[in-house]
Amino acid sequence: MEKWRRTERITVITKYILDRPNELISLNNFTELFQAAKSSISEDISIVRDVFQQFGFGRIETLAGAGGGMIYFPQISGKNRDDFLKEVAFKIANPNRILPGGFLYMTDIIFDARTAQKVGEIFAQHFAAMEPQYVVTIETKGIPLALMTAKALNRPLVIIRDGSRVTEGSAVSLNYVTGSSRQIRTMSLSRRALPIESRVVIVDDFMKAGGTAKGMVELLLEFKSEVLGIGVLIDTKTPEKKLVEEYYSLLKLEEVNEEKKQILIEPYLVK
Amino acid sequence: MEKWRRTERITVITKYILDRPNELISLNNFTELFQAAKSSISEDISIVRDVFQQFGFGRIETLAGAGGGMIYFPQISGKNRDDFLKEVAFKIANPNRILPGGFLYMTDIIFDARTAQKVGEIFAQHFAAMEPQYVVTIETKGIPLALMTAKALNRPLVIIRDGSRVTEGSAVSLNYVTGSSRQIRTMSLSRRALPIESRVVIVDDFMKAGGTAKGMVELLLEFKSEVLGIGVLIDTKTPEKKLVEEYYSLLKLEEVNEEKKQILIEPYLVK
Repeated sequence: MEKWRRTERITVITKYILDRPNELISLNNFTELFQAAKSSISEDISIVRDVFQQFGFGRIETLAGAGGGMIYFPQISGKNRDDFLKEVAFKIANPNRILPGGFLYMTDIIFDARTAQKVGEIFAQHFAAMEPQYVVTIETKGIPLALMTAKALNRPLVIIRDGSRVTEGSAVSLNYVTGSSRQIRTMSLSRRALPIESRVVIVDDFMKAGGTAKGMVELLLEFKSEVLGIGVLIDTKTPEKKLVEEYYSLLKLEEVNEEKKQILIEPYLVK
Repeated sequence: MEKWRRTERITVITKYILDRPNELISLNNFTELFQAAKSSISEDISIVRDVFQQFGFGRIETLAGAGGGMIYFPQISGKNRDDFLKEVAFKIANPNRILPGGFLYMTDIIFDARTAQKVGEIFAQHFAAMEPQYVVTIETKGIPLALMTAKALNRPLVIIRDGSRVTEGSAVSLNYVTGSSRQIRTMSLSRRALPIESRVVIVDDFMKAGGTAKGMVELLLEFKSEVLGIGVLIDTKTPEKKLVEEYYSLLKLEEVNEEKKQILIEPYLVK
């Protein structure tokens, strides 16, 4: 007789999987925990896998071979993704968000943990197949999105410091020119933070001309990193030509009109 | 006949609950989604609740009244908490982490999403009963821990900026003296980031003399905030008297001996 009922096992398995995205999970964890036969656990997992697929929670891949295992890839269906981005765009388009100088107040949105998590899962879904080893961002506003991307990819987060004030041993610093306001700034990364020759993706909240992203790519070159992709929550319509060749953006900011109190922002939809 | 089997419903309910900590969830969500009777859903939830309790995943409180509902409070059992903190302490105690000047390299640990999540859940468990409305931190290293605390508490994150470079409209700035190195620094918070008279908790990674924490408390006073508690991952043995009265720390750094290449760090255990 088995000690745990299927409903109980399924609750535990669901929680366990959700805590470990992009990680190979051995079936033995569960056969031992529940003192159950491998066939029972396999059936449990089939049920969870099918539900995850039907409800758009993500993809669970089961693997045969020594003991058997599975990997959970968080995914958002195209429709859920698009609905979510429309909702974020709608929130950002509130004219009360216009700050002097045509800036937009949106830290409340990008610092919201659930929003950040969903954005992170969208980025993770996009980048997973590239098999990055690290997720890189620059302080400060990109951190929540990058952390949630790192969580969904099950990879470490690396934060480039703004300025040269690094208390983390020897560091590489780089002067760069912000593309839009043409200011000279410095960014730094501790030597210890990233092994050389790593495969990385960059995540940030905003791209105007792309000067910061270009700076990050150059700094990462000093670490002989391979930058597999760049993800930003928002890019701007102008300047049309960015300083980096390719990137993946979720929302396009077309215009902030201080006079008319109007913000035009559109999601890049997949459906 | 009901369309979804119990095992399927339980998978969905588990995922749904885990995505919504500290939020009142109505049973109607599930009766509608599954076209199921309230009694069936109630039974599903009892199963999930009991498993969560038995496996130390957290507490699910069910509420009677209009439609019925529940709230999920993430919790870590005392033993799991202690084991986790011992593991973190062990990682930090690696002598290779000693940097010139007796600093410790530990960004890889606090920027690790899973570690940050667990720390966040421990803080959330400690602070939940105080019913904070916001989680406040200061850039940069405290952000991952504070974001995960905010996520577990289902509350917005507010990030105080280091320096006075704020592009978020009018802001309140405060000069403060770091307690240990006696430097004068500035921190700022946008007026929009926090409504006045909010109930907040502060989360940060490290406390030596407590000058930064004291500065945050003072800045928050300018917003007429009530600071309900302060949580830090690590505090130091010296100076014994901190500049803030009370705080909740998870690890105590007793000594960093550069010469002997020795780090003494101990978790504050509950068991």
